[in-house]
Amino acid sequence: MMIDGAMLIGGDARQAPARFTAVEPATGNSLTPDFSSADAAAVDEACALAEAAFPTYAATDPENRAAFLEAIAANIMAIGDDLIVRAMAESGLPRARLEGERGRTVGQLKMFAQVVRQGDWLDATIDPALPDRAPLPRPDLRRVNVAIGPVAVFGASNFPLAFSVAGGDTASALAAGCPVVVKGHPAHPGTGELVARAIAEAVTASGLPAGVFSYLPGETNELGGALVADARIRAVGFTGSRAGGLALVRIAAQRDEPIQVYAEMSSINPVILFPAALAARGEALGSAFVQSLTMGAGQFCTNPGLVLAVDGPDLDAFIATAAAAMTDSQPATMLSPGIHASFEKGVDALASHRAVRSVARGVTGEGVNQAVGAIFETDAASFLADRALGHEVFGSSSVVVRCRDLAEVSTVIASLEGQLTATLHMDPADEADAATMIPVIARRVGRILANGWPTGVEVAPAMVHGGPFPATSDGRTTSVGTAAIERFLRPVCFQNLATSLLPPALDDANPWAIARRLDGKREASAR
Amino acid sequence: MMIDGAMLIGGDARQAPARFTAVEPATGNSLTPDFSSADAAAVDEACALAEAAFPTYAATDPENRAAFLEAIAANIMAIGDDLIVRAMAESGLPRARLEGERGRTVGQLKMFAQVVRQGDWLDATIDPALPDRAPLPRPDLRRVNVAIGPVAVFGASNFPLAFSVAGGDTASALAAGCPVVVKGHPAHPGTGELVARAIAEAVTASGLPAGVFSYLPGETNELGGALVADARIRAVGFTGSRAGGLALVRIAAQRDEPIQVYAEMSSINPVILFPAALAARGEALGSAFVQSLTMGAGQFCTNPGLVLAVDGPDLDAFIATAAAAMTDSQPATMLSPGIHASFEKGVDALASHRAVRSVARGVTGEGVNQAVGAIFETDAASFLADRALGHEVFGSSSVVVRCRDLAEVSTVIASLEGQLTATLHMDPADEADAATMIPVIARRVGRILANGWPTGVEVAPAMVHGGPFPATSDGRTTSVGTAAIERFLRPVCFQNLATSLLPPALDDANPWAIARRLDGKREASAR
Repeated sequence: MMIDGAMLIGGDARQAPARFTAVEPATGNSLTPDFSSADAAAVDEACALAEAAFPTYAATDPENRAAFLEAIAANIMAIGDDLIVRAMAESGLPRARLEGERGRTVGQLKMFAQVVRQGDWLDATIDPALPDRAPLPRPDLRRVNVAIGPVAVFGASNFPLAFSVAGGDTASALAAGCPVVVKGHPAHPGTGELVARAIAEAVTASGLPAGVFSYLPGETNELGGALVADARIRAVGFTGSRAGGLALVRIAAQRDEPIQVYAEMSSINPVILFPAALAARGEALGSAFVQSLTMGAGQFCTNPGLVLAVDGPDLDAFIATAAAAMTDSQPATMLSPGIHASFEKGVDALASHRAVRSVARGVTGEGVNQAVGAIFETDAASFLADRALGHEVFGSSSVVVRCRDLAEVSTVIASLEGQLTATLHMDPADEADAATMIPVIARRVGRILANGWPTGVEVAPAMVHGGPFPATSDGRTTSVGTAAIERFLRPVCFQNLATSLLPPALDDANPWAIARRLDGKREASAR
Repeated sequence: MMIDGAMLIGGDARQAPARFTAVEPATGNSLTPDFSSADAAAVDEACALAEAAFPTYAATDPENRAAFLEAIAANIMAIGDDLIVRAMAESGLPRARLEGERGRTVGQLKMFAQVVRQGDWLDATIDPALPDRAPLPRPDLRRVNVAIGPVAVFGASNFPLAFSVAGGDTASALAAGCPVVVKGHPAHPGTGELVARAIAEAVTASGLPAGVFSYLPGETNELGGALVADARIRAVGFTGSRAGGLALVRIAAQRDEPIQVYAEMSSINPVILFPAALAARGEALGSAFVQSLTMGAGQFCTNPGLVLAVDGPDLDAFIATAAAAMTDSQPATMLSPGIHASFEKGVDALASHRAVRSVARGVTGEGVNQAVGAIFETDAASFLADRALGHEVFGSSSVVVRCRDLAEVSTVIASLEGQLTATLHMDPADEADAATMIPVIARRVGRILANGWPTGVEVAPAMVHGGPFPATSDGRTTSVGTAAIERFLRPVCFQNLATSLLPPALDDANPWAIARRLDGKREASAR
């Protein structure tokens, strides 16, 4: 499959006059070819096509929609090694990681195909008429979720496959019945174009209207702004920086008809080391921590950027082991010069903070855009006194906070902004303390995990990759797992409609064989 | 039970120095006593108590929480006729309507008690560990909905019981496990105080922390603004005007940690008369229409403010019958001088609009604050040319739009802002046309009903009392029916937690006997 720098407006590959190039982060060199920088006219055209495609696409039956998602997955695999090679060049990420990410991306599309077939997402609810009820009869009421309309998706830099053109936002929006217009991330436009062409081919092969999918590469803020402001866009999926996400939230709120932006933005993912666990295996935890912190140059939303524990010799031992592991840790190429510069700036700010001590740095690298890991430490009073110490430094940087006692750990947790995750390392002897703290933690995070590391987000029905602001802009939702589809749906109630006019999901005959809620009682899943 | 003008801060009845009085709309006279006008200090205190009460209240088990809701219902009934008499004086609404509304309010509380016991709202989801999965094992993942935190509720003027102090917002927030701070509507402060005392007594009798409920009467915008801006408030329920709702949305968006405002605001509820139905029973529809339009002085969110049909003699007959019925319709006292003044202003604007013809007015009333119903007509081209013709006039005023053909009806529907409802009057011969139009309608509304009238909103699992902006500020939700609870919940995922640390809803032993989702498959409801 070729890369020629095109936008895909519906299925139509088109070159824009304005151009930009991708940078190979490992060398700092520009990659060929150069790419279309989509403008407001392209946004207008893509949104018009998406709106025109919406009624047809939203009305597809589960089997055809699922087959379309599976066709996208197959087409992505069919690109073959070209996709991996291009993504390696554009992201600096290693082959094994990108092959795994491709598997995750394809697996996610297939999972949503099964979700669509199963039909839980429809939340089909039937309250039969009660004609003899006194004082007034009850009408026949039936409720079902419908697709919200065209969705804008912003690809993320750090997962050029799994959170990008055909990532979780796109997969869940398409599963919901929404056409998608992707604003491609400028750090990996070749990867993006390959995947976009795979999707567009699946649209054509599935006999769907071309407007079901458009791909707009570009590097300007105007492009993203025009897309979110377009009246035909009904929701936005975004993974990226806090500043970027909030800019989109503001634009969406100022529309004549405001819409929801699902932005996954900023998190430092506290790790709490409880006393018994710290005493029993502080050193093992120290080296495992550095492994999680430095994996993928620390470029994960769920990177462990904060460690909380009670001060004392056990914490000293943890820090000493972590310091040794960090001192030996090898540098890694970051995703882009901009991300590298932000990381260095964040690390420098911590290093020069008067209340912060530098514990260890990783091995300094040769070449450009190399992440050199960093561990810092401070005390709880200092941490609580300066909110800036709780801001995300995207990359392999983490701050250990020495607390007087577990009550102070709790105080620090309660002071945090919303987080994607919190991690508890504990032994059975810690469980009583953990039980006291979990309600405090649960108010600040989307996922609580025990005796593991937060990096690694399973794609599953029970997953929550979300959390209170600013982890996300809407803490009621998740961007990973089957529940991600709910972001792109809204309920409609049908009262006393003739059977012939009801959506199939609400037909008494239940042609899609889905589990429904009947007179307030749920049926069991048939599959 | 007494009315002495107090605020209830937690259970503590307290007088504020600033005072306001309620007006009896039927006479324009002030009612006694005068009432506390709560200020920012009262907001601060109520929110502090709500936050302090949250952990305990959120942790109540379903049976105790349900019993608390039932105790509120019993306490409201125990107020007896004083409540009805006071509400009649403050609202101008007749006894039968208020007795019915009390039944609805109490029924709603009991329904949410059953919802809490059943446990569907927890959306408990368990993905067991897959330790042998390759290439990586799957951890044990469990997800459950948790209460979002203290909720602010703004009482509505038009339902002094069912959408006010103990209305659907309060009932669903309490059901979710959220403490509630009510900002009472200044049009019915005595009614509000009686109900607030009933709730506070139930809090005490149930052994709950006093901060579970506070009641802040007042008439200033500052009061509402301070409440929504308070960092401890985590969500807002509001039913009222578009200007009021949008003001709260703006305040909520500007917080350090923005929150969701669930505002139900503005809707004109189009009624579509399909040709065969119009030919078969245009006259009957005309008089039924006026009955729905003038019921309760038209002071319903779902009032039929717009009628769409194909021009011709059948529509002439409908309009003639409607005009006759309207000409005979008696005036009715409106809820407040302010609402009456807005109604008159809206009717005057339509009456003097160059593209609008006045069809009929009701009988002119004696006395103050009397709604005199109004029907207007225009053509589709004029309607489409001036968006102001599609703005809500709260009260018994409606515009009939003559359309060239059904395609033009569809065009008008597609041009509308979001609506709570759309009503289709149709005969079997209209079904093919209706089938074509329903997807267009479904994009603009929360509820589609056939051969009835939109006033009358059933409290049931399948109900959607919501819709795209500006019908509500969040079209994914409903403020009536069991799904209203979802507004005040957020999901939390637990990964590899010891059983002893899991919430009961996620315990393998399932102590609450709720239907869950296990490995992606739903269980059937046990009750």
